[in-house]
Amino acid sequence: MFRELMTYNQAKKLIFNEINPKPLGNEKISLIDAYSRILYEDIISNMDIPPFDRSTVDGYAVIAKDTFAAEEISPIELKVIGEVKVGIYPKIKLKKGEATEIVTGAPIPIGADAVVMVENTQKQKNRLFIYRAVTQSENIMKKGADIKKDEIILKAGKILEASDIGVIAALGFTSVKVFKIPTIAVISTGAEIIEPGKALIPGKIYDINAYSLSAAILDSGGKPIILGVVPDDEVELGKTLKKALISSDIIITSGGVSVGPKDYTPKVINSLGKPGVVISGIAVKPGKPTTVAVIGNKPVFSLPGHPASALLVFYLIVSPIIQRIAGRKLISEKKVIATLGSRLFSAKGRKTYVTVKLSRDKNQKLIAYPIKSGMSGAITTLSKADGFIEIPADQQFIDSNEKVIVTLLKNKKV
Amino acid sequence: MFRELMTYNQAKKLIFNEINPKPLGNEKISLIDAYSRILYEDIISNMDIPPFDRSTVDGYAVIAKDTFAAEEISPIELKVIGEVKVGIYPKIKLKKGEATEIVTGAPIPIGADAVVMVENTQKQKNRLFIYRAVTQSENIMKKGADIKKDEIILKAGKILEASDIGVIAALGFTSVKVFKIPTIAVISTGAEIIEPGKALIPGKIYDINAYSLSAAILDSGGKPIILGVVPDDEVELGKTLKKALISSDIIITSGGVSVGPKDYTPKVINSLGKPGVVISGIAVKPGKPTTVAVIGNKPVFSLPGHPASALLVFYLIVSPIIQRIAGRKLISEKKVIATLGSRLFSAKGRKTYVTVKLSRDKNQKLIAYPIKSGMSGAITTLSKADGFIEIPADQQFIDSNEKVIVTLLKNKKV
Repeated sequence: MFRELMTYNQAKKLIFNEINPKPLGNEKISLIDAYSRILYEDIISNMDIPPFDRSTVDGYAVIAKDTFAAEEISPIELKVIGEVKVGIYPKIKLKKGEATEIVTGAPIPIGADAVVMVENTQKQKNRLFIYRAVTQSENIMKKGADIKKDEIILKAGKILEASDIGVIAALGFTSVKVFKIPTIAVISTGAEIIEPGKALIPGKIYDINAYSLSAAILDSGGKPIILGVVPDDEVELGKTLKKALISSDIIITSGGVSVGPKDYTPKVINSLGKPGVVISGIAVKPGKPTTVAVIGNKPVFSLPGHPASALLVFYLIVSPIIQRIAGRKLISEKKVIATLGSRLFSAKGRKTYVTVKLSRDKNQKLIAYPIKSGMSGAITTLSKADGFIEIPADQQFIDSNEKVIVTLLKNKKV
Repeated sequence: MFRELMTYNQAKKLIFNEINPKPLGNEKISLIDAYSRILYEDIISNMDIPPFDRSTVDGYAVIAKDTFAAEEISPIELKVIGEVKVGIYPKIKLKKGEATEIVTGAPIPIGADAVVMVENTQKQKNRLFIYRAVTQSENIMKKGADIKKDEIILKAGKILEASDIGVIAALGFTSVKVFKIPTIAVISTGAEIIEPGKALIPGKIYDINAYSLSAAILDSGGKPIILGVVPDDEVELGKTLKKALISSDIIITSGGVSVGPKDYTPKVINSLGKPGVVISGIAVKPGKPTTVAVIGNKPVFSLPGHPASALLVFYLIVSPIIQRIAGRKLISEKKVIATLGSRLFSAKGRKTYVTVKLSRDKNQKLIAYPIKSGMSGAITTLSKADGFIEIPADQQFIDSNEKVIVTLLKNKKV
C-alpha cells in the first residue's frame, strides 16, 4: 500500500489558499472587558493629552524670567496673588512680579511659564522668596506632550495590554471595537471513547481530546464548543457535523481518520458540501492521518485520535488559522536554540516532530531532551513537553550535542 | 525637608511580613472552565491509563512466539478465529497457532502478546500469512504504560495548560479544584480625575489608573472591581474604603499620596483599623510616595497618581502579593540581558527604575533603549515599554554599551 503524501509545507500553503482565513468582523465591548482582546481599528486621539499645561510638582507658578537672578544666598521676591487647585481651571492671570501657589497636576495659570518647587521657596504671608532660578517650561507638562490630537496611538491588530487599556481610558472612551472571537466546534469520534464523568466500561477510555483541544483553542484566541463523543456511526457523525456547521466557524474532529476499516469521516464530510476534503494525509510524524476539508467557507480539521498527536497537529496546522480568524497578526512561533540531549532518528521520508523537555545543565546551557514515548498516544508526554523540534524529511537523524531549534509550546517558560 | 525613606528591599520584606499573603482556599469548577486556573491539590491517578493493553496499529493480535520463523520469502500461517473491535472488551481467548483481526486502540485479547501490522500480512478467508516476525509486546501499549494508578500526575500550584486539562479528562474527572481568585478593589482619587465616558471639564483629566491597573490585576491572577473616582473629600474616601474592605481581598488606591496639602489618604486609612499604614514612602524612582497599609488582614496599597509610575509600582510591589494570594507559586520575573542604548543616570540615593524599549540591531544584538519621559505621568511611555532596568541606589549612572538586565513587563515578547 503506497500513497504519495503531501509534504507539510505543501499542506500549509494549500490550507491557507483553500480556507483563506479572514477575521469575522468586530464587536464593541466595554473597556473593562477588553484586556487581552485584539484591537479592530486604529485608536486615534480625539484630544491633546494632557488637555492643558500641568504642573508636575507642588510649588509656585511663576514667570521664569522673574526668577533668573535667584540664588541660594540671595533670593528674589514675588507676590503671591492666589492659589491654583487641581481639577479647576484657574481664572487668575499672572503679571510680572507675581506668583500663584500650585499643586501637582493643577493647570498652569495664564501668564505663568514655569513652576518653582516648594522646596526652593519660603513664604511669609503673601511674600514669596525664591532661592533657585527656573527656566521656561520647567516643571510643566505641556498640553499634548503625551498624546497629540489626531495621532494614531494604537494600531489595529494589537493585543490589548494593561497599558493600552490605560491609554484608551485616557481619551475618555469606555468601550472599544475588538475582533469577534471565532467559535470552534470540537467533536470526538470513536467507539472506544467515553465522556469523562460517566462510568468506564471495560474496553473503553475517557475522551481526552475534547478537553485538551478546547484549552488549546482558548490559547489560540477561539471559543470552544464541545459537541461530545460521536460513537461509531456514520449517520450520527453526519448529524453532529451539520449541527457544528451551523453553530460554529471552524470544526475540529479527532479520531476516526487512520487507515482502519471504520474510517468513514472523510466520506461523511464530503457528503455535506463543497469543496469537501482538500487534504487527506500529510507527510509529518506524528499527524500523518490528518484530513483537512472545507464545507462552504468553513474549515473542518480531522485530527488523529492519539491525544499527543492531536494536540501537536493542532498547534502546527489549526492554531495559525484560528489566530488569523481571531484577528491576530500571524504570530511567529517562539523559538529557542538548545543543545540536543540524545541522538534522534526521523521517520523515513516524513518531516518528524519530536517533543522535548528543556532544562539547563551546570553551565546554564539549555539542553533539549527528547521525550521518549513509544506510542504517540501517551498522554503524559503532553504535560512533560516544553516544545518540539523538527527533523526535515530528507534527514535521517540529529546527533547528540548538535544545536537544535525548539519551537515552544504555548504558555511554556524556559 | 528630609525624610529617611525605606529602601525597596526593606519595603518588600516588610510588606511580605506584614501582609503574610496566603491563598484564599479552593473552589471546584468545571474542567471546561479550568484553562489557565491554578491547581489547588495534587491530581492523583485513580486508575491505570490505558486501563487495558491496547493495540497501537491495525493488524492481527498473535502469540509472538508463533511468528518467530516468519520471513519476507517464507511466511508462517495462522488461523484467524475472530475480530476484536474498539470499545468492546473481547471474549476471545487465543491459543497457539491462532490470530484475531484487531484495529488501533482495541483491547488485546487474552492469550495474545503482540500485534502484526496489516502491511506485513496477507489473508485468504481465515488463513493468515505473516511475512515478518514480531517480538513480545510489539505494537502493544501496556495497561498503565502512560499513567499508573496512585501516581501523582499534576502538582498543586500548576497553572493548567491545554495538556494538563487533557490529562485530567483522561482520568474521567469533569471538575477540578482550583485556587479562588482574589478580588481587588480599585479606587482612583483626586479632584482633577473624571471617569471616562463623562464630558471633560476644563482643568480635569480622564481616569487612567482604574483601567490600566484593572488589566494588570487580571494579568496577575486577580479579579478587579472598579469603585470609581473619589473626589477631594475625606468622608467620601472613608466610605469608599469601608465598602472596599467588605467586598474585596486587596484594595488599591491611586493618587493623593504625594506631598501636597490634600494628601489625607494615609490619615483616612489609619482611621479604619489596625495596624494601618506600615510603609509611607519607598526609596524608588518612580514610586516614592507609595504607601502600604494593612487593615485587619487586608492590604491597602496607595500608589502614585501618575499612570506610568502607578503601573510600574504595581508590577514591582502589588503583583507579587496578588499572585501569592491567587495561589501562584511566586513567579520569578522574566529577564533578558541586553546592551544599553544610551547612558542613564539614577535618582540620587534612590533605586531607579527606567522603562526601556527593546529592539535588535543589524547583528541581532538586543539593545535596550531608555524611554525618555521628562514626566513620569506620560501615558504613552506605558505602551512603548517592553520592560525596565534597575539602577542601584548607590550607582550614579550606567554607561551606553554596558550590559543590563531587563525585567520584561507582562505579555511583552522579545
